[in-house]
Amino acid sequence: MNFLDKLDAAQLKNNSLVCVGLDPDPAKLPKKLSIFQFNKLIIDQTADLVCCYKPQIAFYAASGIQGLADLQKTIIYIKDKYQIPVILDAKRGDIGNTSQMYAKEVFDVFDADAVTVNPYCGFDSMLPFLERKERGVIVICRTSNHGAIDFQDLRVNREPLYLKVGRKILTWSKKYPNIMLEIGSTWPKEIYILRKIAPKIVFLIAGIGAQGGDLKLTLKNGLRDDKKGLIISASRSIIYAQDPRNSAQALRDEINRYR
Amino acid sequence: MNFLDKLDAAQLKNNSLVCVGLDPDPAKLPKKLSIFQFNKLIIDQTADLVCCYKPQIAFYAASGIQGLADLQKTIIYIKDKYQIPVILDAKRGDIGNTSQMYAKEVFDVFDADAVTVNPYCGFDSMLPFLERKERGVIVICRTSNHGAIDFQDLRVNREPLYLKVGRKILTWSKKYPNIMLEIGSTWPKEIYILRKIAPKIVFLIAGIGAQGGDLKLTLKNGLRDDKKGLIISASRSIIYAQDPRNSAQALRDEINRYR
Repeated sequence: MNFLDKLDAAQLKNNSLVCVGLDPDPAKLPKKLSIFQFNKLIIDQTADLVCCYKPQIAFYAASGIQGLADLQKTIIYIKDKYQIPVILDAKRGDIGNTSQMYAKEVFDVFDADAVTVNPYCGFDSMLPFLERKERGVIVICRTSNHGAIDFQDLRVNREPLYLKVGRKILTWSKKYPNIMLEIGSTWPKEIYILRKIAPKIVFLIAGIGAQGGDLKLTLKNGLRDDKKGLIISASRSIIYAQDPRNSAQALRDEINRYR
Repeated sequence: MNFLDKLDAAQLKNNSLVCVGLDPDPAKLPKKLSIFQFNKLIIDQTADLVCCYKPQIAFYAASGIQGLADLQKTIIYIKDKYQIPVILDAKRGDIGNTSQMYAKEVFDVFDADAVTVNPYCGFDSMLPFLERKERGVIVICRTSNHGAIDFQDLRVNREPLYLKVGRKILTWSKKYPNIMLEIGSTWPKEIYILRKIAPKIVFLIAGIGAQGGDLKLTLKNGLRDDKKGLIISASRSIIYAQDPRNSAQALRDEINRYR
């Protein structure tokens, strides 16, 4: 099964568009838990409420080899026990022969079902990921942070850069249907504009929760006609909640009430 | 000592602007050698000929935990035995709290003296790296690959995007003098334009050797008035050469004849 099929299956089974971001900051974890043990608690509480998980690799790499071993264990655990697809948030991208190596890192070493990539280096930097047709490739387009405006908003022939990126991705999606876009929920107007030009592409939506993204506007502007096409990711607001299961369920239900 | 001071010291001591890119493709290594052992051979043959080394992290991560352990050993070996600074080529960048974690990865876990970062997410995505003032931060501006034209050449008010990126970096360099630019030697005209607007900033030049960059034009267009300001990186053409020492020396001497 390819990534989009796995995602569809999990969305249907759990009736959910929620993605839990597994970004365990070692400074915030209970002292006696390893990163993997912390993740396992979150996963066991939420696996029937989500359509995917999204570990951010930096939160593991910051703990060195041990952290990366915990990432490997986490991904194996999710896929083996729950058959939920995993997006490795890594924002990779480099010249072709280097991106080949990054593709090995995310898809072979860590066996992620999908990855986030950075578009700045252009199409040939994404090709080694895209050629793995059974995996998903999510191109960051309009990021959730304030600094997104520094370059992504620069006007290219009266259109902002992020929209040019979106249009290019749309073109490439004809040949590579495993391509998707990442957009911050902090930019609902931009979600609206991108959905207009790309009515079918799946959007990964970051920034719900701690970053203060607007959920209702995100859904209004981002849902496809089939009431899907979004992966709504929340991290800190779920994994550090007093009751992670409750938080994930509340987010799932709020989304479902809207759609 | 901060990165630029270490770089200056090595450039002076070895009379060299050469950086060897340590990008060991496991498929190309002699069978009995680990990645670290392969690197050690290259380093021992070239340490008196270079101003820095630049391992590309993907080439290690593709071999998983063992590859990353070899990267750690490689960096420790270079710094302890030869006091040569190390650039970790990683092209990192994400929203602030994630970039914090990436900064820990490259500067604490791997103890690199400098890192390459991707500008697409904007200033706040680079800040956690820049705040480590003793380390160097090299922003990719005009990459050496063909796909560089896809976005980096888009016209923003009659100027290409890469030049806008260069101008922003120049502004930020007033407060963060540890910032630098990466430019491909495959684009000598762009090196010329960027040197015009940034007469003092250090440029990391990639793409010499296997990628066919133009060395003479790169030097003509990129050298500062003090005949420095460039880090000329070559990887495959040195590490897979029959005699890596000879190749590194030939490159060093060719550069020095010009300057």
